[in-house]
Amino acid sequence: MIPQDLASVSPALTRYARDTLLFGLWKRPGLSRRDRAVITVAALIARNQAGELPFYMNYALDHGVQPRELSEIITHLSFYAGWGNGITAAQVAAKIFAERSIGADQLPPASPSLLPIDQAAEDRRARTVEETVGSVSPGLVKDTGEVLFRDLWRRPDLAARDRSMVTVVALISNGQVQQMPFHLSRAMDNGLSRDEASELVSHVAYYAGWPAAFSSVSVVKGVFDAARK
Amino acid sequence: MIPQDLASVSPALTRYARDTLLFGLWKRPGLSRRDRAVITVAALIARNQAGELPFYMNYALDHGVQPRELSEIITHLSFYAGWGNGITAAQVAAKIFAERSIGADQLPPASPSLLPIDQAAEDRRARTVEETVGSVSPGLVKDTGEVLFRDLWRRPDLAARDRSMVTVVALISNGQVQQMPFHLSRAMDNGLSRDEASELVSHVAYYAGWPAAFSSVSVVKGVFDAARK
Amino acid sequence: MIPQDLASVSPALTRYARDTLLFGLWKRPGLSRRDRAVITVAALIARNQAGELPFYMNYALDHGVQPRELSEIITHLSFYAGWGNGITAAQVAAKIFAERSIGADQLPPASPSLLPIDQAAEDRRARTVEETVGSVSPGLVKDTGEVLFRDLWRRPDLAARDRSMVTVVALISNGQVQQMPFHLSRAMDNGLSRDEASELVSHVAYYAGWPAAFSSVSVVKGVFDAARK
Repeated sequence: MIPQDLASVSPALTRYARDTLLFGLWKRPGLSRRDRAVITVAALIARNQAGELPFYMNYALDHGVQPRELSEIITHLSFYAGWGNGITAAQVAAKIFAERSIGADQLPPASPSLLPIDQAAEDRRARTVEETVGSVSPGLVKDTGEVLFRDLWRRPDLAARDRSMVTVVALISNGQVQQMPFHLSRAMDNGLSRDEASELVSHVAYYAGWPAAFSSVSVVKGVFDAARK
Repeated sequence: MIPQDLASVSPALTRYARDTLLFGLWKRPGLSRRDRAVITVAALIARNQAGELPFYMNYALDHGVQPRELSEIITHLSFYAGWGNGITAAQVAAKIFAERSIGADQLPPASPSLLPIDQAAEDRRARTVEETVGSVSPGLVKDTGEVLFRDLWRRPDLAARDRSMVTVVALISNGQVQQMPFHLSRAMDNGLSRDEASELVSHVAYYAGWPAAFSSVSVVKGVFDAARK
Repeated sequence: MIPQDLASVSPALTRYARDTLLFGLWKRPGLSRRDRAVITVAALIARNQAGELPFYMNYALDHGVQPRELSEIITHLSFYAGWGNGITAAQVAAKIFAERSIGADQLPPASPSLLPIDQAAEDRRARTVEETVGSVSPGLVKDTGEVLFRDLWRRPDLAARDRSMVTVVALISNGQVQQMPFHLSRAMDNGLSRDEASELVSHVAYYAGWPAAFSSVSVVKGVFDAARK
């Protein structure tokens, strides 16, 4: 977390790394360390920052994230942050898994039994996407249903709450706030508490930059207000 | 397209790479393989993903993209995605061109005879930019005319349709949808069909991430609706 | 500025590098070379383009940017562009500082005496952030005050005008225009002239891509119009 180079360029960064991040942000309540690790890894994958990934992937594995969960986070973000981001993350993880002797038996199968689907909710989602996207890109409508919501999202080795959480982190990190209302509502339906979502925004500010966090605020507010009704 | 590391981290990614991308997306109608290669290379350059570029640049050259076209795509995106992105892409291409013994005789000259200009359309464009940008940044107005529209866009070694296509891909990939109406209309005027544009959105979803594609949908719809009138 | 690889891929890029950038953009009035170097380094850090950083960091140090200023730019953008961007930039700078024998005595201390604060302005800022962000993320409100405005922004080794300038560059470069009104007004209050801001937009177009510059135009116009009243 505190590379040696920092001190020879910015003693202040060393101080912030230690006091503000390590003994500040990462120790405060609102989110478990395990969740902070998941959020940080997701932000780094979403922004394709391979340099920082080894430290935080190892940290995640040391603080309760299972290899199968990390595998699924990478798979999930290959679609929500872009294929190349997934490949980059997989290459970093491959080294770490080898170092830790994490073998195929600890990985999710390519085609597991999928979680049951909430057909009414899926029908609503499919109808909305058909209405908004159907006349623009039938291919996108088809893939969103077949590849993402009827396959990827139903894979069992990452909890729905965590899957939603990394999706929301990717959206904030890449400034794609348009899709936040759907995914943050879904995250809260899937068990992310309001306090956790609040602190998630604040944690992401450090790893995706302050402006990304601030740009998400009005959208998060809209979801919180709607949830209260 | 399927790095070996994938299997040791995510057997699912290997399955998606093969079934969903290689034997799915890349084989479906709507866009030629050559166009898919151009679009993918453009998305990777726009997002500065050097790791994936060698595979897809080689794929492009193997599927009908000429070296002079690849050269122009890099030159064009140096302005539409940022100078550093162009340099990164040129460094990757330099190795590939050397391996394939592609020499200077296959490259576009630095200063070729430029394509004729549609003076009425250029006058309209210049007037609009002067009205919207003139009071903010005279330098940007000047460079947009002199460097881009009266020079770069008139270079003959990349078809106007392809030049527009990579511009649109860069805008979607980087979430810069504000400039989409102008450039997507121009792409369609330059010969990109509506069906190709539809499938382009869907192809880009994989390489720039789903949220980028979804964020472009309402803008694409606006252009399609206007074109229908 | 002109890597050798360019010529073997795009003779045009070599021409643009020389005529349009080196003997064009970088020599024109509106901004000093020193400011252009600061802006370019900020754009590259904001976009995490490590490959281009060594050239421009050296150029900055050769054209009037002090090591302590470069150190502070990196520290500042660690928050405004993301922690990983700061680490990447620090790693590049560490090599350059070692090559130039820039030692600890030339770096800003971790905890210097902070600049005095304009309490009325800070109270206004804190009130606005509390009103807009307080119900969404108390952690973000707290850190924005404690870490950024009552600490980072008051560090003395980078002029307030330069600190604002690199913040604005980061916002344009990453398409985060929502926060531009506050930070561009602040930049102008801190001494960035209107002509300098105009030319900044035009300079950033080259290094962050044309679409990023164009997307900032309407927001910059709003700030200019408000300042004129």
